Order: sequence, then C-alpha cells, then structure tokens
Amino acid sequence: MLASKIHATIRQVLPDKGEDIALHEPCFGGNEWAYVKDCLDSTYVSSIGQYVDKFESMLADYTGVKQAVAVVNGTAALHMSLKLAGVKPGEEVLVPALTFVATANAVAYCGALPHLVDSEAKTLGLDPKRLHGYLEEIAQVRRGECVNVKSGRIIRAVLPVHTYGHPVDLEPLMEVCRRFHLELIEDAAESLGSFYKGRHTGNWGKLAVLSFNGNKTITTGGGGAILTNDENLGQLAKHLTTTAKLPHRWEFFHDQIGYNYRLPNINAALGCAQLEQLPDFLEKKRALARRYEEAFRGIEGVTFFTEPAFARSNYWMNVLLLDANQAGELQRVLEFTNDHGIKTRPAWTLMHRLPAFQDCPRMDLSVAEDLAGRLINIPSSSQL
Amino acid sequence: MLASKIHATIRQVLPDKGEDIALHEPCFGGNEWAYVKDCLDSTYVSSIGQYVDKFESMLADYTGVKQAVAVVNGTAALHMSLKLAGVKPGEEVLVPALTFVATANAVAYCGALPHLVDSEAKTLGLDPKRLHGYLEEIAQVRRGECVNVKSGRIIRAVLPVHTYGHPVDLEPLMEVCRRFHLELIEDAAESLGSFYKGRHTGNWGKLAVLSFNGNKTITTGGGGAILTNDENLGQLAKHLTTTAKLPHRWEFFHDQIGYNYRLPNINAALGCAQLEQLPDFLEKKRALARRYEEAFRGIEGVTFFTEPAFARSNYWMNVLLLDANQAGELQRVLEFTNDHGIKTRPAWTLMHRLPAFQDCPRMDLSVAEDLAGRLINIPSSSQL
Repeated sequence: MLASKIHATIRQVLPDKGEDIALHEPCFGGNEWAYVKDCLDSTYVSSIGQYVDKFESMLADYTGVKQAVAVVNGTAALHMSLKLAGVKPGEEVLVPALTFVATANAVAYCGALPHLVDSEAKTLGLDPKRLHGYLEEIAQVRRGECVNVKSGRIIRAVLPVHTYGHPVDLEPLMEVCRRFHLELIEDAAESLGSFYKGRHTGNWGKLAVLSFNGNKTITTGGGGAILTNDENLGQLAKHLTTTAKLPHRWEFFHDQIGYNYRLPNINAALGCAQLEQLPDFLEKKRALARRYEEAFRGIEGVTFFTEPAFARSNYWMNVLLLDANQAGELQRVLEFTNDHGIKTRPAWTLMHRLPAFQDCPRMDLSVAEDLAGRLINIPSSSQL
Repeated sequence: MLASKIHATIRQVLPDKGEDIALHEPCFGGNEWAYVKDCLDSTYVSSIGQYVDKFESMLADYTGVKQAVAVVNGTAALHMSLKLAGVKPGEEVLVPALTFVATANAVAYCGALPHLVDSEAKTLGLDPKRLHGYLEEIAQVRRGECVNVKSGRIIRAVLPVHTYGHPVDLEPLMEVCRRFHLELIEDAAESLGSFYKGRHTGNWGKLAVLSFNGNKTITTGGGGAILTNDENLGQLAKHLTTTAKLPHRWEFFHDQIGYNYRLPNINAALGCAQLEQLPDFLEKKRALARRYEEAFRGIEGVTFFTEPAFARSNYWMNVLLLDANQAGELQRVLEFTNDHGIKTRPAWTLMHRLPAFQDCPRMDLSVAEDLAGRLINIPSSSQL
C-alpha cells in the first residue's frame, strides 16, 4: 500500500521521537531573545525603533534589492505592491491557479480580477510559454496597454508565485511582460533564500513580496516585506504603508488614502535574529531535501520534487508527487500520514474551485489540476 | 506670554529630568518579559498559540462584551467592523471630522464615503443633537434604510470616536440610530478603560474597535480588537480576519474573500501582560490629569479639558484648550513647548482639510473647526 510505504519512507528520514512532526516550525536558536528583550527594554516596540530599519537594510543586503519595506504580513505586501504597480479597479491581474489564497485576495482588495494561469510541471509555478500562447489568443496591446479582448478589461500585471520556494522561469516570463506591456510583480512569499540564475528571487520585476509568517523559512510572528529596485517606488511604499503622513514635528497631514501596514519594532527585532540564521537554515533545509530525495529514489509510485535546473531553491516546503496512475491514493496518503504522527497536506484548493474566484477569467488549467491531484507537502522545518 | 506660561505650568507638573518628555510612552513593568519569553520558548509566535485566546478573553472580561477578536491593528478592526455591519461600496458612513485619519480611511477601504459630522465641546466627539437636526434636513428612511436625499446614497452607519478617551454622549446617539435606521459602530481605539454611565465604551453599538498601538494606554507593539455583543458577528469576525478558511485537518478551503488580520501570538503575549496592569495605568493617568487640572486652574487663557459628567474617562491623551481669543497663539505654544523639551501636538488635521476627503459630504463643522484651532495635547504617559 502506497500510503504506508510513503509513511515509512518519511519515518526513515525523520525518526519517531514520540510526538507529531509538524509541517514547518520556526527555530529560535540565535539572538531572538536578546533582541526582543532589548526592544522591550527600550520601550520602542511599535512604529519607532531601530529594528525595523535594521531588518529592512538586512533584507535589502541579503536579497540584493535596492530597498526593502517591512510590513505587517505578506498579504499587505501583495496589496501594496499591486497598488504601487498601478493596478486599478476593474482591471485584471494574471495569477497562478495553484497558490495560497492571499495572492488572489490581494488582487480583489484592489477591486481588480484575478485572471487564472496554468502551471508548468518543472517549477510548479506559472508557465510562461503557455501564458504567451494564451495571450496571443485573447489579448492585444492597445495604446501601450494590454487589453483582454474577450472581457474588454485591461490586464495590468502578472503576479507569479515561486511555489513552495521553487522559482518560476523568470526570463521567458519577462519576455511575455515586454511583449504584452505587463507589470511583473513577484510573489516571493515562499522563496526567501531562493535564487534564479544566481540572482535572488524578487529582483526581476517592478516589485516583489516576502512573507515571514510562522510557517515560513524565517518568521517575525507575522510580517512581510515589499522589495523593489526602484527607489521612488520604495519611498512611496514606505509612505503608503505608514498612513501617507507627511513628516512634521507635530502636524498630522496625510496626502492620500494610506494604510496602517508597518511592521511593529518588536516583530522586526525577532526578524533580525532570524535573518542572521538564514544561511544556516537554508543549508539544513537543503540537507533535509537531499535526504528525502535519496530515500524516495527507490519508491515506486511517488517522486520527490527537486529544484528546476536554473534555480537554487530554499526548499521551503518539500513536495512529493504521486505518479499519475496513483492520484487516486492522495486522500489515503494524507489520512494515513496525519493519523500516524506525520503532518502532511495537499496543494491549496485551486483558485477557480473557491466560491470567490470561480467566475474569474482563466486559461486551461489542466497542468495545475493534474499537479493538485497528486501533490503532497511533507515536514520541512530546518531543525529536522 | 501664554506659550511660556503653559510651558512653565507643564514643567511644574512634570519636573525637568534633562530629557524630552514624550506625548505617550508605554510602560513595561509587569509580566511582559515572562510572557514574551514563554511565547518564544514555545515557538508558537504566529497564528497558533495560547496568548491570542487569553488576550481575547481578558479583553472581553474587562470591557464586558461577549466577544473580542484580536487583530493586527485598530485600522484593520475598523475595516472589518464596517464590513461586518454591512457597509457596501457607494454607501455613506457618518464619521466625525475631528479624528485620526484611520477612521475615515477604513470607510474608504469599504468603497464607501465618509460623511463628516461636527463635534460638541463637552465631549470633543460627535454631537448627537446637531446630527439629529442635520439628518432631519438631509435624510429620509426609505424601505427601512437611511437615504441621503441630497446624494441619493444610503447612509449605512455612524462611527463615533471617543476622542482622546472621552466618551461621546451615547444615549442620544443611539436614539438617532433608531430613528434613522443606522448601524452604530464605536471607534473606541482611544478609550480602553473609559466608561459611559458605568458601562465600558464599546458595548453600545453593533460592533466596536480598540487599538493597542505604541502610543495607546496599553500596547501590543501594533494591534487592535473587534468587540461585539453579537456572538454570530464575533464568529464571523474571527473567520473573516483569518482568511475565511474553513476548519479542516489538511485542506485549504476559503468560503469567501477573507483577510490576513489576525494578531500574532507574540504581540498577544505582550498584550496579556499589559492588560494585567491596566487598572494601575488608569489610576496613574487620572492622577496625572488631576495634577494638570490643578496646575492650570489659575492660568488665564487656557483650560485643562475634563471628562464629561456622564463619563469616567481613561484620560488617554490630555487636552488643553486655549480660550477663543487666544487661538492665534496655538502655533507659538506648539513651537515653544516642543523646542523646550515638552512634546505637544495640535488636533489632527480635520478630515475635510485632507485631499482624500475634501469632497466628502459634510454638515457645518464650525465646532470642530473652533476646537481644532485651540486644542493642544500634552504629555500623558501613565508613568509621569
């Protein structure tokens, strides 16, 4: 039985220590307490304080972008990035059907419509080649803007997701963006520590988004960041996420509708300590992925997913793919592993299967459908 | 010179210790370290963990509401409360012109329009009697809904603010709501610890909002809460603020467009420790207010603002009002005090003076204008 074989193989990699093994847990082995305590002692736990600045500059240094703006979570970062890229109500944004719901929700927060795109098997992310062919059919560039000739709406942007940490194929995607006058925003929520052709994800579009939720490679409790190589956009991101208040010693003047999306200093303090350990976390996560890869090599009916040739992935969330003829076993595998001390989960419900997005425009989604029917996430914490 | 007289009077209450005196600083004198350290040690810093539940139940106990839902900040709580009260795009919501910008922004996030209301001098908040008269002129109830006959839009709700912690006159306001079929949502962001006729603010409308920003009476770094006495609304608030995901061991199914507005556990840990000290903070803040009241009693040209007769206020942010004939001194007082080691600030820029809201519908705002021309906030931290 495949379910018990998969369970046994994971157990071979992760010996039984008498408690359930979570999908992803944070590891606080560095300066977390020192920095958080320092933050408490300073009383600057909120909007003012050194850790937000430090965290932002550490993020920019690590990823290689010009500016990082720390915000309250990845969803807020997505919302702001879409707004900053010029997405307006009634427009469409191309997003993968296979993603966490925040990607599509953020488009909806702008009053825009997610337009759902299929995945490719080698990255699990958006398929640039098929997207190109699809846009040739349904889109035209008119007065410098991409128009969906079927709906009459402007398609403003593409929001690819580096799914489970594996980079999408960015170069052909950038070519699609040039050809169809689309803004590129990278949803790098899952890909801190993942590189495409030697350069960190988040450097390739107009803006990008990170998440530091509790299940991510590093955590701030809840948190996220907007990344950009355009310093004007970076300044505007800071302004918009801090209620659009103009600097003044005592006056409260806000020059537009802004947001309360800044990251509190106490969460940034945690983030600084976590980021210091990122290289170590990444090494451990790669080693765990290699152990899984080895262990699953001989197992029939299932494959451990490995990074695309052009990428160095963070292996945020490890992925098993059942063979096509074993897709019927998916529920049994999930049940058996969860019942026997190993947390696993399937792909997120595809966006067009959710009530909120079932009527959104979409291309043929057969690859995403196929992947979602066979995909299993297995425990991935760096300390494993 | 009034400016130097005011400065000297504040100095008499707050002796010079060689450093600038802030407007409001948090005080961490309780279990902050212990709870935050415990939270880090548990590794449950994010969405899962006991402190969020504990904080919510402590908030409900203290305020006397049936349910409190902790969220990422007061702005998010306002946004969700308006949505839960049924505010829809194209509708209007009555808000005071004299408030922090988040009140009006949250209305805009719903696609609705703030409709600006004047203040009354005895509370600094929305004036129920004048609102009643104004609505008699411009509004009609049609098919059970309040319609602005001038704009043709539905007026869905009233969002009074308990300004600087002082409760608005809620009973006559509730009468206005009954008469005109308006939902009442209390912006109690500033009034944790403030009571109206013996009952805590936040109990009088359909929903209410708290804030735990760094400058508030208690802080979680950044945080807020939705309060309600309607358990169905409370459950829906929790659901909407946690991505509208249905509970399941492994599936990700979201039944509507949700939000990532939950408070991280590490911020809730801080909140629990702070809330334990609230009675002590409130006592100290009242004592400080009494010292100011005494000290300013003999000073001509300026009055220390005290709580309305029907209220017991938290004195979150202390208020001086210049006499009408001294309004021309406002800028000089602000400059002199800020230049000489005492942080002060004026009222927020009135909403109709901000570009985003200058074209919003509004009643005559002469009381708010008058107050904003004479109002000065002075240092208010509980440890002073």
